[in-house]
Amino acid sequence: MNYRMIVRLLCSVLRIVAVFLIPAAVISLVCHEMPSFWGFVITMGGMLLLSLTTFVFPARKKTFYAREAFVLASITWLMVSALGALPFVIGGTIPHYIDALFETASGFTTTGSSIVRDYGMLTMGAKYWRCFTHWLGGMGVLVFLLSIEPITSGSGDSMHIMRAESPGPQVSKLVPHTLGSARILYLIYIFLTVLMFGFLMAGGMSVFDAVTTAFAPAGTGGFANTAASIGAFSPYIQWVVGVFMMLFGVNFGVYYLILQRQLRKAFRNSELWLYLITMLVATAAVFACVQPQYGTADGVRQSVFQVSSIMTSTGFATTDFNNWPQFARTLLVALMLMGACAGSTGGGFKVSRVIMVFKALQRELRRALHPNQVGKVHIDGETVSGETIANTYAFLVAYCLIVIFSVLLLALARTSFETNVTAVIACLNNIGPGLDMVGPMGGYADFSVLSKIVLIVNMLLGRLEIFPILILFVPGVWKKARS
Amino acid sequence: MNYRMIVRLLCSVLRIVAVFLIPAAVISLVCHEMPSFWGFVITMGGMLLLSLTTFVFPARKKTFYAREAFVLASITWLMVSALGALPFVIGGTIPHYIDALFETASGFTTTGSSIVRDYGMLTMGAKYWRCFTHWLGGMGVLVFLLSIEPITSGSGDSMHIMRAESPGPQVSKLVPHTLGSARILYLIYIFLTVLMFGFLMAGGMSVFDAVTTAFAPAGTGGFANTAASIGAFSPYIQWVVGVFMMLFGVNFGVYYLILQRQLRKAFRNSELWLYLITMLVATAAVFACVQPQYGTADGVRQSVFQVSSIMTSTGFATTDFNNWPQFARTLLVALMLMGACAGSTGGGFKVSRVIMVFKALQRELRRALHPNQVGKVHIDGETVSGETIANTYAFLVAYCLIVIFSVLLLALARTSFETNVTAVIACLNNIGPGLDMVGPMGGYADFSVLSKIVLIVNMLLGRLEIFPILILFVPGVWKKARS
Repeated sequence: MNYRMIVRLLCSVLRIVAVFLIPAAVISLVCHEMPSFWGFVITMGGMLLLSLTTFVFPARKKTFYAREAFVLASITWLMVSALGALPFVIGGTIPHYIDALFETASGFTTTGSSIVRDYGMLTMGAKYWRCFTHWLGGMGVLVFLLSIEPITSGSGDSMHIMRAESPGPQVSKLVPHTLGSARILYLIYIFLTVLMFGFLMAGGMSVFDAVTTAFAPAGTGGFANTAASIGAFSPYIQWVVGVFMMLFGVNFGVYYLILQRQLRKAFRNSELWLYLITMLVATAAVFACVQPQYGTADGVRQSVFQVSSIMTSTGFATTDFNNWPQFARTLLVALMLMGACAGSTGGGFKVSRVIMVFKALQRELRRALHPNQVGKVHIDGETVSGETIANTYAFLVAYCLIVIFSVLLLALARTSFETNVTAVIACLNNIGPGLDMVGPMGGYADFSVLSKIVLIVNMLLGRLEIFPILILFVPGVWKKARS
Repeated sequence: MNYRMIVRLLCSVLRIVAVFLIPAAVISLVCHEMPSFWGFVITMGGMLLLSLTTFVFPARKKTFYAREAFVLASITWLMVSALGALPFVIGGTIPHYIDALFETASGFTTTGSSIVRDYGMLTMGAKYWRCFTHWLGGMGVLVFLLSIEPITSGSGDSMHIMRAESPGPQVSKLVPHTLGSARILYLIYIFLTVLMFGFLMAGGMSVFDAVTTAFAPAGTGGFANTAASIGAFSPYIQWVVGVFMMLFGVNFGVYYLILQRQLRKAFRNSELWLYLITMLVATAAVFACVQPQYGTADGVRQSVFQVSSIMTSTGFATTDFNNWPQFARTLLVALMLMGACAGSTGGGFKVSRVIMVFKALQRELRRALHPNQVGKVHIDGETVSGETIANTYAFLVAYCLIVIFSVLLLALARTSFETNVTAVIACLNNIGPGLDMVGPMGGYADFSVLSKIVLIVNMLLGRLEIFPILILFVPGVWKKARS
């Protein structure tokens, strides 16, 4: 294990996050929110001090294997959540550390579950920082690091890092170099965010609201600045947000292919089609349920918005779907499980994994009939390797075990079965709202401290897609020498 | 596809079931329940008539492949459920056919979910028949057929049938011949049932109660003759039932090894140990939750009984665990998912599959660290084949998809989320009671017709372990010639 290299990269991450705290500090200063301002400044100072560790343990070798990448990703995400929570505590906006940690982990992992009861308690700086965590977490702070400097000796080495942080069963480079790939991803990401900002401004939003509102769907997080979420804005704004959420749930590789004018290849993508068709069918089904309640025009908007919000794992709300008919609310929970496309900023099991396990199931059924045939799994004309399938299956196993154990731990408190099941699903899939107590107009404030910790772990497991964190507990991973 | 052979075996099954209807008819006659009596007699007559089909299409070849076995198993179970329901309808004890089908499918699949609202409506004959379906379904009607005559040309051929009907990821013969293996299984089964009957009689039960009460735990079904279930009997009876449920959840191969005095091999069985340890830990946890409510002596009995009842998929109740603290009730739901040992009469995912997916997950984690190592999965010193693991994974995928789609379909009615989720889990795992409306003191009577049909399909999918039924929908399975 190349500990020194991990320390070096962690210190780089600290500097990046410290720089990204500057706008929040400036906003607090301009708005005369001095406790918040000092919260940001002290945290930044602390981060910069801590980042000097790299000079105490300078990295000797730049080699970096999958093992190091997993450990780096896990520690990075624990660290940015733990330290990113400090401004809330120091500034007094969220006085309890576990609550602040919950909010920050929820932000970075783009979950959007909130423990905030009274939005009036949040300063402008805190509001900005909360929403910005979504943006940075969505594409990933390590991918950001990869996009600004070549950090390891070989491109293969840094690819391990990209793979550890990026969602999806198969992470591939867009261009031969990891640096270039990461840069392209961030450029597309910034372009789409700015485009959305423009559309929101055109709808009459203030600059502050437009910026913070654009951050959340970009990262597919769901923090809003008021309890009414996007329901506080005009139907035009709701349409803009609804459409952009859907766009951010698409594999960014598709956008790159479109930019390269490889349209045929871009649209020969079964994941994209299943994603869009599922959305369409689910929207129609939800509309059929809620039309009597809202009428046709409002009903279409509510259905499109809510399906887009849940399936992309954003979690914004325009209405209290907890009060919807049973089929509509259950359908939303099913969409939470499926999630968005791999290679997007969205969470969940991912559409591509659904396709993969479904095809592998078909293969097993064929094999049960014809035991001597060796079946292969093909997706979009390409053979999926046995390792990728085994890995996807193992992901499903881990996913199911985590849901079961987390629901059991939440059941130690007195919250309802429906609350517990949907809270775990909403946090593990980085969605945000669930049903019952954690419905879109409810919140996570009333959970016990143990439950909050369980849900924080779920959010991190979900964002990093389980394995990087589980691997920390495999015997032998901390050994210094590689066999 | 050897259709004629399938027809021949289906006709044999019809004759077996017709013979097994005789005691029910006799009981009804003795008790002067004439409508019930005629219900049994007419059904028997119809079955015997139908079984003459075999003379219209005599089987030419006796060869029988996996494909035929799956189709045979699916049709057998649909047929015995559909026809076994007729005595209830004709006799007037359960007038609506879908209700009668639900009750009979629930009986044969050893689920034990009931639509009976008023136990006073059931005649003695109907009570006997209801409970007897558990006994026949527990070990399987096809295994019974295999135990009485050599039905196919080769032992390998009839092994396909045994594999299609018996639970567990790896079904192996106890002795070289399938006939002998099936016979040994049924002899152990009969011995344990008679032993239990003796213990129940010793507790002062009437012969009728002792017989019908022994049928249910033997097959790990949960039908009782009164709404109070086993709660109507003395603590002694509750202990006897509690212990025997646990015994029937053990792999029968273990009993065979014990009879062969191969004790070391019998107890070198990680499934058995995980089953017992899980039961012990779960009982202790439940006891800690319910001790304040029942006191120590009653608390121990209630905990042992309920954990044994749920984990073995029996579903008997001695108390309304729906009112227990949230942790205890959630733990029971988690136990429902795990289920009993493979090769027992119990349902659920099976302990051996849990071990298998857990070991496969560990292998994937190791492979993520050391990509060039080829990891194998070992259980009890033996290597598990890649096909068995792939098959188990596919089972998990199908299992998850079935749960999600079934819960969605149930959500079309107005039943609660908790009711729907636990009803699907309880039926797919052949348990019986769930939570909320389908709690141990509730029932399935109030579901819509669509919901009942969905749950019937779930029970059959659960009992046959999904694949035999799914395979009916694979293109090409109905083709006459084999490629």
